Amino acid sequence: MNKQQLFENIKRKKSFLCVGLDTDIKKIPEHLLKEDDPIFAFNKAIIDATAPYCIAYKPNLAFYESMGVKGWTAFEKTAQYLKTNHPDQFIIADAKRGDIGNTSAMYARTFFEELDIDAVTVAPYMGEDSVTPFLTYEGKWVILLALTSNKGSHDFQLTTDAEGERLFEKVLRKSQEWADDESMMYVVGATQGRMFEDIRKIAPNHFLLVPGIGAQGGSLEEVCRYGMTRECGLIVNSSRAIIYADKGETFAKTAGEEARKVQQQMEEQLKAIL
Amino acid sequence: MNKQQLFENIKRKKSFLCVGLDTDIKKIPEHLLKEDDPIFAFNKAIIDATAPYCIAYKPNLAFYESMGVKGWTAFEKTAQYLKTNHPDQFIIADAKRGDIGNTSAMYARTFFEELDIDAVTVAPYMGEDSVTPFLTYEGKWVILLALTSNKGSHDFQLTTDAEGERLFEKVLRKSQEWADDESMMYVVGATQGRMFEDIRKIAPNHFLLVPGIGAQGGSLEEVCRYGMTRECGLIVNSSRAIIYADKGETFAKTAGEEARKVQQQMEEQLKAIL
Repeated sequence: MNKQQLFENIKRKKSFLCVGLDTDIKKIPEHLLKEDDPIFAFNKAIIDATAPYCIAYKPNLAFYESMGVKGWTAFEKTAQYLKTNHPDQFIIADAKRGDIGNTSAMYARTFFEELDIDAVTVAPYMGEDSVTPFLTYEGKWVILLALTSNKGSHDFQLTTDAEGERLFEKVLRKSQEWADDESMMYVVGATQGRMFEDIRKIAPNHFLLVPGIGAQGGSLEEVCRYGMTRECGLIVNSSRAIIYADKGETFAKTAGEEARKVQQQMEEQLKAIL
Repeated sequence: MNKQQLFENIKRKKSFLCVGLDTDIKKIPEHLLKEDDPIFAFNKAIIDATAPYCIAYKPNLAFYESMGVKGWTAFEKTAQYLKTNHPDQFIIADAKRGDIGNTSAMYARTFFEELDIDAVTVAPYMGEDSVTPFLTYEGKWVILLALTSNKGSHDFQLTTDAEGERLFEKVLRKSQEWADDESMMYVVGATQGRMFEDIRKIAPNHFLLVPGIGAQGGSLEEVCRYGMTRECGLIVNSSRAIIYADKGETFAKTAGEEARKVQQQMEEQLKAIL
């Protein structure tokens, strides 16, 4: 999916919501545990209920890997279900990968060739040759970690170098030598508030993937005020606040209602540009 | 496995070699492709042939993930085979993971609880709360990326901050607030030569996992001159140069011979401390 198509979907659905599929066997409704594949059953129901209100899904690989082979099977089935039944959804594998060149190339092959996923989150620490193998696939995206939503983001990402540039700013600037805003996005946590102003100085047109709304406490309104571009430029993720809003038999319906509430707030924010 | 046991193994085997199980279905001998699980068949043969000459194995997860469910099965079987048949080997999952706290905790559960692996490589970019969930398991290890062996390591890891400290040095220093040398190691590429001197100023007693010998061109002798401690303090990895030394029916035997050659060089280097 290219940038233009992504923006078309945002306009059509009046939403820039990404639903995070952080599916944990310990947190899904009990009645699903009798299914053959409870994780996939949960994801399928969540997807069908929330799809009208979002434009992207983001399974976090950690949750699937923690269940070994069963988890990988559920992950592959979820990706396949999205491709087949909701082909307008942008699929992000939240993997935070990054390794030496030949190894990153293996990861790229997994996500982009085998699974035909749209985007992968990548960690920048190992530099250019750990990122570029992901950039050779037409219509696919790297979403590079820039300024994350967690407390530990302060440990290294805010380190200021001798020229006064912070590490996350260097990541934003340097990585633009490798790809432009048609194949690269950045992760910027919603908890970072006004930092979006600084980020837009360096990356005025890139899409930003924004975790941290909801359970982590970030403000949608603040993110939009400082981070929205004329083409929206934001994909805001919510995981736990939507998928675990209800732990009973009505979990999917409730998740749909929660997603709709967020969509309505987003529709309000989009009035500034549409 | 604790630090003392690891050093005992090094002394007993006169080796600090780690064999990297970067097993690629496209590179293994053709006659294995008729096996039910060619990747595991390859790993098993390589392990049995090289085990006398090494003290650790390091499967890189990228190679297994690229084959989806089949790859995960092969990875789990390999870990299980090592635990059962070679219980003195230190097993490193080269995963380069790191995510927000609750997600890192999921990864830690996978590797340390489900698979009972000894160590996981972790990326430092997201800071403290992305690393500490891996540190709550007695006898298990975090191997944090510090200064990697690839060209891109220069992009961010060598950035000097306003106080004159380079990013990899900050990672070494800061992370010692989270754990000591009994549960943390660092990745330092063999290609970084004299940088080992600088690293030993900050981390004088930590074990370092050293990739980059062999195919990537690092020098064992140089690594030992600047990086060896009185308890060895080095685990040197070789992957391609050993496991793909021979692509015919005699692949395992040749891998064993190559591992033995490296072990002999290591025995020579260990004379300085034993």
